[in-house]
Amino acid sequence: MDLHHNVDYEHERQWLEPLLRTKIPLAGTMDLRIGRLDEHGIRLDFPLAPSVNDKGTAFGGALASAMILAGWALPRLLLRREALTAELVIGRCELRFLAPIYSGYSAVCHWPEAPVVAEFLAQARDSGKGRLDLQAGIQAEGRLAASLQARYAALITPGTGATCQ
Amino acid sequence: MDLHHNVDYEHERQWLEPLLRTKIPLAGTMDLRIGRLDEHGIRLDFPLAPSVNDKGTAFGGALASAMILAGWALPRLLLRREALTAELVIGRCELRFLAPIYSGYSAVCHWPEAPVVAEFLAQARDSGKGRLDLQAGIQAEGRLAASLQARYAALITPGTGATCQ
Repeated sequence: MDLHHNVDYEHERQWLEPLLRTKIPLAGTMDLRIGRLDEHGIRLDFPLAPSVNDKGTAFGGALASAMILAGWALPRLLLRREALTAELVIGRCELRFLAPIYSGYSAVCHWPEAPVVAEFLAQARDSGKGRLDLQAGIQAEGRLAASLQARYAALITPGTGATCQ
Repeated sequence: MDLHHNVDYEHERQWLEPLLRTKIPLAGTMDLRIGRLDEHGIRLDFPLAPSVNDKGTAFGGALASAMILAGWALPRLLLRREALTAELVIGRCELRFLAPIYSGYSAVCHWPEAPVVAEFLAQARDSGKGRLDLQAGIQAEGRLAASLQARYAALITPGTGATCQ
């Protein structure tokens, strides 16, 4: 399985960015932009101002949101490529806040390995529920400022999954 | 140590709510209101609309933000009562998302036991850094919809802590 064969990342970016900004208004408020989407993964860019806290640094809840969205984006795209109609939800996560952020920041998530993706999609097709563990991080001022480990679940919408197998 | 002796909760509410809404603009966007602040703890109330996601339910990042703020509020008030000037930050947390939310929701956090509070304040005064573990939860539609376990750290601002001992 080649994750990246014939993928039009620019087309995916043009589909995903407005979806995130309009369907999740908090992401719009945070002024989310897809800074990069390619065979390595995704990078979401955010200015500091909408995410700022009482200390003039980035609010932990904003960083959590940014990383949850970066992680969510990748299985969302995988499901779309397979024409699987599913609700994609986060089940649980662990967050580490490593350094204060005084500037704009980026949430980064890398594609999982191909066998992990294959297992996720097979679970989703065969049992109606696929699980995917992902790590994401916040990059700011040249360093890792926060990290996320999360489990996502794709719940195939009844009646639609079978048509896409 | 009686946490609640002579505490004017209404006065604290009037101080805290505008602080959260203006100093953390994302909390203002989420239309945070302090629904309750008393000897049991704090309840922050949120309408669904600013927190909604692509599924019409509450976005995980909004729930994370709501719980992080509910937890943060309590040590913030403890430090204020002791006139300790400190930066209060979240160090790490674990989140569980238990059920989708189709309505407004509340983030709830209870006061820790008095000995835990005493230890937190003593650490802050004596070493300049106090740590506090807190649990918070999201209540919606009569059930627990998400939970947070978090560690906060109060970093006494140099030159100010000693004057408050």
